[in-house]
Amino acid sequence: MLHPFDPGYVAEPFLTLCSDYPDAAVYPASEFRVEWGPIFHRGRLDGSARVLVVGQDPAQHETIVRRILVGEAGRRVQGLLAKLGFTTSYAFINTYLYSVYGSVKAATRRNPALVDYRNRWLQALLGEQKIEVVIALGQAADGAWTAWKATPQGQASSPAYAAITHPTQPESSSGGDKAKLALATTKMLRNWNAALQAVHSSVAHPDAPTPLALYGDAWAEGDRLPIPEMDYPAGLPAWMRDNDGWAARKGADELAKRRNITLTVTKGVVA
Amino acid sequence: MLHPFDPGYVAEPFLTLCSDYPDAAVYPASEFRVEWGPIFHRGRLDGSARVLVVGQDPAQHETIVRRILVGEAGRRVQGLLAKLGFTTSYAFINTYLYSVYGSVKAATRRNPALVDYRNRWLQALLGEQKIEVVIALGQAADGAWTAWKATPQGQASSPAYAAITHPTQPESSSGGDKAKLALATTKMLRNWNAALQAVHSSVAHPDAPTPLALYGDAWAEGDRLPIPEMDYPAGLPAWMRDNDGWAARKGADELAKRRNITLTVTKGVVA
Repeated sequence: MLHPFDPGYVAEPFLTLCSDYPDAAVYPASEFRVEWGPIFHRGRLDGSARVLVVGQDPAQHETIVRRILVGEAGRRVQGLLAKLGFTTSYAFINTYLYSVYGSVKAATRRNPALVDYRNRWLQALLGEQKIEVVIALGQAADGAWTAWKATPQGQASSPAYAAITHPTQPESSSGGDKAKLALATTKMLRNWNAALQAVHSSVAHPDAPTPLALYGDAWAEGDRLPIPEMDYPAGLPAWMRDNDGWAARKGADELAKRRNITLTVTKGVVA
Repeated sequence: MLHPFDPGYVAEPFLTLCSDYPDAAVYPASEFRVEWGPIFHRGRLDGSARVLVVGQDPAQHETIVRRILVGEAGRRVQGLLAKLGFTTSYAFINTYLYSVYGSVKAATRRNPALVDYRNRWLQALLGEQKIEVVIALGQAADGAWTAWKATPQGQASSPAYAAITHPTQPESSSGGDKAKLALATTKMLRNWNAALQAVHSSVAHPDAPTPLALYGDAWAEGDRLPIPEMDYPAGLPAWMRDNDGWAARKGADELAKRRNITLTVTKGVVA
């Protein structure tokens, strides 16, 4: 049985980007979980990516997998990309290398060292001019794009661009209230539909050409898609690609919680 | 600040070895923790390795890092390699791809599918004839070597070879008894000294030529060495290279424990 995997960072400029990255001097430990290390990307770095997704920051599942957007948000975006015809030719990076802890100060967000490093990733991915569509997830990612577009290199690249509602905004904004969640989901899916309609015609080289099928007012079968095995490092077990919930931050107090990630193999995997 | 990292599996035959590996049909779930996935190697796969270490099986720290011998046993072996003059030109593989659960049946150990796959790794590393010394850690690894030497390819390669006591055998054999531990440690270090004396003259291309300095009868300063950052995947935090103890299997019963790995950031890292 074949298990395709992501070989990771094998060529420049990614070798340098992944060995020389901003640390706590740029990402303060009071605003980011720098103690878990940076997590860089998911997807194709070999020049084959045609769509670029800019996310926000990694969480605990990403910390274990060492790839971004591998949880529920990732599955939702995977479905969105499929609606544009992309099944493999994508790359994801985040606004922030480290998981946000609390909130990010404006001065941190605008720190040139933070922005410049991220722009080097954007240039690495966009400089080849093969990316046809860029999608930003949430406001922080939209800000990252704006900062990039303010540079000469950013001005020189002109893919179609859509800033959309972050894929787990409905959950984070509804505080466990089911009615609010349903409303926020509807609102988000309409926002995503508008983005799909705006960028669909810019897709020139889809992996699987597909007529544009918009979302309904709630999640439907097939809207969330599994993350392909080829996006994960070699040897990771299948349950790490299943629904998230297998990694949690546990502890009696804030510090204990911050120092902890607890992994639990999905029920039924071990007999 | 530069953070060298191991790019991993970037060329053949390793791309194929890491995408097409034996699963629970070969490694029974009653004898191996197959649920955590295979863990393949540590060190150089680019043809620069001059010494090959064959270990036994990965444990919980290895499961998170996805590289083998990154715990206490790894640090002890790192010190042993330094006594032979090797600081970077090494490769480690294990007898078993998965962590042993309980004990391994003879039929499993001898399963041709298990042995043949491991032999493909040995051939990948030894076929180039650059490896000058092979060191097997413990009886299972010695058995792996014997099985390899029984093949035509194994017969065709003739590095110096030493089977030594497994680096954590003193702990596992002494059951918390300090006097027993000290005795077992002395015995092991003498066993290692004999191996060093046997293979030292076969080292033709050390990284740092060094006169042979044998172990005393107990661990001394410098005998255990840190595992270089360049052996780890990109972005892993520094505390994952510190002393082990940051990953543990916890749970109220055997099944819960088997399904769990709990990570705790080393004390003092988070203020």
